[in-house]
Amino acid sequence: MVGQRFVSLLQHHPWFEIKWLAASERSAGKTYREACTWRLRDPMPKTVWDLPVYECKPGGAPQLLFSSLDSKVAGHVEQEFAQAGHVVVSNSSNFRMEQDVPLLIPDVNPDHLALIREQQKLRNWKGTIVTNPNCTTVGLVMSLAPLANNFGLDKVIMTSMQAVSGAGYPGTPTLDILGNVIPYIGGEEEKVERETRKLLGKLVDGHVKMGDFVVSAHCNRVMVEDGHTETISVSLKNKATIADILQAWHDYRSLPQERDLPSAPKHPIIVREERDRPQPKFDLNAENGMATVVGRLRECPVLQFKYVAFSHNTIRGAAGAALLNAELMKSEGYLD
Amino acid sequence: MVGQRFVSLLQHHPWFEIKWLAASERSAGKTYREACTWRLRDPMPKTVWDLPVYECKPGGAPQLLFSSLDSKVAGHVEQEFAQAGHVVVSNSSNFRMEQDVPLLIPDVNPDHLALIREQQKLRNWKGTIVTNPNCTTVGLVMSLAPLANNFGLDKVIMTSMQAVSGAGYPGTPTLDILGNVIPYIGGEEEKVERETRKLLGKLVDGHVKMGDFVVSAHCNRVMVEDGHTETISVSLKNKATIADILQAWHDYRSLPQERDLPSAPKHPIIVREERDRPQPKFDLNAENGMATVVGRLRECPVLQFKYVAFSHNTIRGAAGAALLNAELMKSEGYLD
Amino acid sequence: MVGQRFVSLLQHHPWFEIKWLAASERSAGKTYREACTWRLRDPMPKTVWDLPVYECKPGGAPQLLFSSLDSKVAGHVEQEFAQAGHVVVSNSSNFRMEQDVPLLIPDVNPDHLALIREQQKLRNWKGTIVTNPNCTTVGLVMSLAPLANNFGLDKVIMTSMQAVSGAGYPGTPTLDILGNVIPYIGGEEEKVERETRKLLGKLVDGHVKMGDFVVSAHCNRVMVEDGHTETISVSLKNKATIADILQAWHDYRSLPQERDLPSAPKHPIIVREERDRPQPKFDLNAENGMATVVGRLRECPVLQFKYVAFSHNTIRGAAGAALLNAELMKSEGYLD
Amino acid sequence: MVGQRFVSLLQHHPWFEIKWLAASERSAGKTYREACTWRLRDPMPKTVWDLPVYECKPGGAPQLLFSSLDSKVAGHVEQEFAQAGHVVVSNSSNFRMEQDVPLLIPDVNPDHLALIREQQKLRNWKGTIVTNPNCTTVGLVMSLAPLANNFGLDKVIMTSMQAVSGAGYPGTPTLDILGNVIPYIGGEEEKVERETRKLLGKLVDGHVKMGDFVVSAHCNRVMVEDGHTETISVSLKNKATIADILQAWHDYRSLPQERDLPSAPKHPIIVREERDRPQPKFDLNAENGMATVVGRLRECPVLQFKYVAFSHNTIRGAAGAALLNAELMKSEGYLD
Repeated sequence: MVGQRFVSLLQHHPWFEIKWLAASERSAGKTYREACTWRLRDPMPKTVWDLPVYECKPGGAPQLLFSSLDSKVAGHVEQEFAQAGHVVVSNSSNFRMEQDVPLLIPDVNPDHLALIREQQKLRNWKGTIVTNPNCTTVGLVMSLAPLANNFGLDKVIMTSMQAVSGAGYPGTPTLDILGNVIPYIGGEEEKVERETRKLLGKLVDGHVKMGDFVVSAHCNRVMVEDGHTETISVSLKNKATIADILQAWHDYRSLPQERDLPSAPKHPIIVREERDRPQPKFDLNAENGMATVVGRLRECPVLQFKYVAFSHNTIRGAAGAALLNAELMKSEGYLD
Repeated sequence: MVGQRFVSLLQHHPWFEIKWLAASERSAGKTYREACTWRLRDPMPKTVWDLPVYECKPGGAPQLLFSSLDSKVAGHVEQEFAQAGHVVVSNSSNFRMEQDVPLLIPDVNPDHLALIREQQKLRNWKGTIVTNPNCTTVGLVMSLAPLANNFGLDKVIMTSMQAVSGAGYPGTPTLDILGNVIPYIGGEEEKVERETRKLLGKLVDGHVKMGDFVVSAHCNRVMVEDGHTETISVSLKNKATIADILQAWHDYRSLPQERDLPSAPKHPIIVREERDRPQPKFDLNAENGMATVVGRLRECPVLQFKYVAFSHNTIRGAAGAALLNAELMKSEGYLD
Repeated sequence: MVGQRFVSLLQHHPWFEIKWLAASERSAGKTYREACTWRLRDPMPKTVWDLPVYECKPGGAPQLLFSSLDSKVAGHVEQEFAQAGHVVVSNSSNFRMEQDVPLLIPDVNPDHLALIREQQKLRNWKGTIVTNPNCTTVGLVMSLAPLANNFGLDKVIMTSMQAVSGAGYPGTPTLDILGNVIPYIGGEEEKVERETRKLLGKLVDGHVKMGDFVVSAHCNRVMVEDGHTETISVSLKNKATIADILQAWHDYRSLPQERDLPSAPKHPIIVREERDRPQPKFDLNAENGMATVVGRLRECPVLQFKYVAFSHNTIRGAAGAALLNAELMKSEGYLD
Repeated sequence: MVGQRFVSLLQHHPWFEIKWLAASERSAGKTYREACTWRLRDPMPKTVWDLPVYECKPGGAPQLLFSSLDSKVAGHVEQEFAQAGHVVVSNSSNFRMEQDVPLLIPDVNPDHLALIREQQKLRNWKGTIVTNPNCTTVGLVMSLAPLANNFGLDKVIMTSMQAVSGAGYPGTPTLDILGNVIPYIGGEEEKVERETRKLLGKLVDGHVKMGDFVVSAHCNRVMVEDGHTETISVSLKNKATIADILQAWHDYRSLPQERDLPSAPKHPIIVREERDRPQPKFDLNAENGMATVVGRLRECPVLQFKYVAFSHNTIRGAAGAALLNAELMKSEGYLD
């Protein structure tokens, strides 16, 4: 699903163009149309129909590569490409928590990109690997970033209700999820808990100092096609009112907005005032799937505040995230 | 939906029998079969097909009445019956938080039934009103009761993923919930937060002293037919290990089990060991819908522990709850 | 739902503009935003937020009116407006089968519009009523029209799998359709069977001679949001091959295409070659919801041919249909 | 899914007991509990938890074997067991249309079992293979059998709306079917069209003379867990009224009822009188999933009559069908 989102988002991209596709041995040698079971509602762009699918090996590949490989193979493959001089913008989880690998949300921690220099020195790579967070982490961190900046974070408890597209294709069997809730997604809670602290950590002396707060995640699968809904309770280090938080969300702008990067949402955070929003049905495509939509901010009897956040899991949570990472890199001069 | 559950559960009840049915003016004068759009999977019992549906007025009604009236009318109607000498076992929210009205889970706080004496004196009623909690509160409180008893409760954060049957019939329109999550249910969070503290409060000098802990609820509607799933984080007053909590859940028995009340679950709390349970699909009918099913107990980085609880919303959360209340009353000698 | 589609489709219309809104007494006096529970994914256009909602009475209303009234009131109300000189383009079923009322699909029987003259004479109306067919009839008739024109129709059997939006809002309760099929939709089969024969009938001496063929419909509700899928078996009067039929579908163009009416699909019929298409998920928005998508044409062992047709029920099957009717009327000089 | 149904149905069977389980190499060597992802709502019977799973090879296997193998391997494996002297009661499609293999519904064509003698002679087998029809064929043929017997069949057109469990597990991906209809199921229509004619054919001189009528099938997948709904139009050879057909359905009894076979439904055909039945939600478990439920009988403008039929696809359409076949064989003396 993420690979298809990449193809879809790159279709009319002003800076990048699809030149080269690679997949597992099973698909290599076919055209993209033969190899792919296209599952997006909009049809497969004709420009990729006849592109050959190669094996995941350097040689013939362009400088910039987007990877959404299964984590079973991503470690080995991405490393091989980085060694060979490629810029690997990865959606896989393998390298996210490595000390010298940037885990990036350009609207949140663009300065972490500087880890690349360290990475290339340490690993003796001509290329590099840059990563984006897990699809559930993104909406959480986007909604927390203005709070962290303005008031300091102390404690965060999050429960997610995640879409089936997060499990890829074929992914979740209908027999498992029809009329059901699955209160477990392997590895997801751990990813959310640690990635959030790295993303909201500070870059100190060339290293990321993990954010000085705690996060607890409960992750669930529900019968939704796209878009993760999250209920969040939070307590802050410094005093804030509901009005302060709303203001912080409203005012939030960052580097991607300043530089007007092609995939940057104009409003990274959209605050809905209706009492029953955000909802996947109505908020999925806010800012082309790149905004985080929040609502229902109110006091929490246990921590201090609670609210609901929503984010598109295969756009802002995967392919769009990686694309914005690449745009940031280009605007910073890392791509020629 | 709750009315239909009452009919279904009373069908083969060893102690009670349906003698008299009442509903709104619109239905009064019809037979039950004419008045009712039966929505349960098992067919309507033939014994009620031709029972007349009366208006909700005393006169001709038996001593014991089960009420699942809309809260818009329940206040007035239930009071009228209690004044007229009837025992009203109510599923409505109107009287739950009144100081002199028992809010009961027989497996949790059977001693609160003693409030009846106070109630009858204060209100000068020959009859009485006894209530059961909101459908979302039940699963939460059942899973918390052994923790409260053994280790003391400090803080509780709960996120629910609630079934559509909780909204009655016709209830949630398909256009609202198909492939969607609705992160708002009117009044639900407030009910959970205050009912939990009353249910786990102590009866002191004829009054309920609210539990000395705080609860925060996030309530959501998801596309599930029956059964509410809840993710829960909790901190305790006294030291406990994961093994202690599992033991407390396993060992939990209460008055309904001791007296072997007809609707009492043999195991009020069932602990599932699989990493992805409980689930509505598999756990809905545990102990005929009267058990609370828990699983995934683990440490919470923010509070102390977290887990998942599941409870049938129209059986343990409504009709079955009221029925067990009536059974408790009979076993305590309040019904002749 | 159909009213909301009207608002959405008229938002950027090159010829028409929303000047006046009317609804039931319950809504009259409110603004549209207050009166409406907006259910479309794209947000309510701001231009209508503050439009007042009037009662359904002539006086102040513009010449051209689009009606999607409930059939319980449409008969009376539409007649009153037509008498008062308005052009009522109706989506309601009340007048569809009246001998002097055009039942129109502009791509199929635009000449039937001439019935207006007869209607105005007979009823002594200054205005007029023009109707579009039932949402299930449209896809069937669109796919049959090229066959009727080229080879003559003999027999048609159709089974529909219809979306819940066809039942309006709140419409189908989730408890009725979640994981279910409802093999009955009140009045639907009769509408399909007779409307098809009127639409494909010939205008002879100022009257419609019903099509000389028989139609049998089986109508079902399934858990789909928008778009009706139909399986169709057909036998023809004259010899045809599968290639002939595919050609007839491909080549089909009619008056709306020739005149390039704003809502006319460029390709009224789209033939999919994949073995598992059309599908609601992928074909809903073909030609902005105005195309009929067909596929799986093959021989039928009982009649001669069988295939699958798909059509958007609230666009081509309701609001878009009425809009195209109005565009046809304007291009024919019936609106000034 | 079908294997799990076998386990579930055999759990309390009065005649048969599970002694031996076999599956693919991947599962061989594990216990059933390790090898199986149990998907039925009722829990896996404890009696099979620790049964070893063997490879599909004769040697150690009991006389009677139930097979629900994938058709890619069933041909080879079932033949090997039959040669080795086993009675293979198969749910696979491989041998169904072989001239000397009984394709059986015990309520419809029990006499076809006699083909076994021919089969054993021709193939020089000590054992035998007996088959049941496709899950979509069963409901159709059950509802047609009384019509065929009493009035003779001429033409049949059927459209199915089939449950996802028919595709096995993991089967249909949620991303394919959520809010969707898939109007294609590979090979299904051909199976229904030819199996129906064999099942309703006559045994003449040791061979089955295919039924002298034509069948056309349109097969669709919808978002239902269990149970196939079918709309059926039919014309008969001899005169019949609606009352005649209702009578024929009501009166239908056959050998399994006469002999009171353990899995035989008391009423093989249940006629619902409500205008919107049968429905998967309410009719799934009629006669423990072994009845065919029909409703909405009315005249068809194209053929003569039309109605709706419903049948449980993994019980009557698979595991229960095979079990009833084995019971018939035992009652006929084919098993010792």
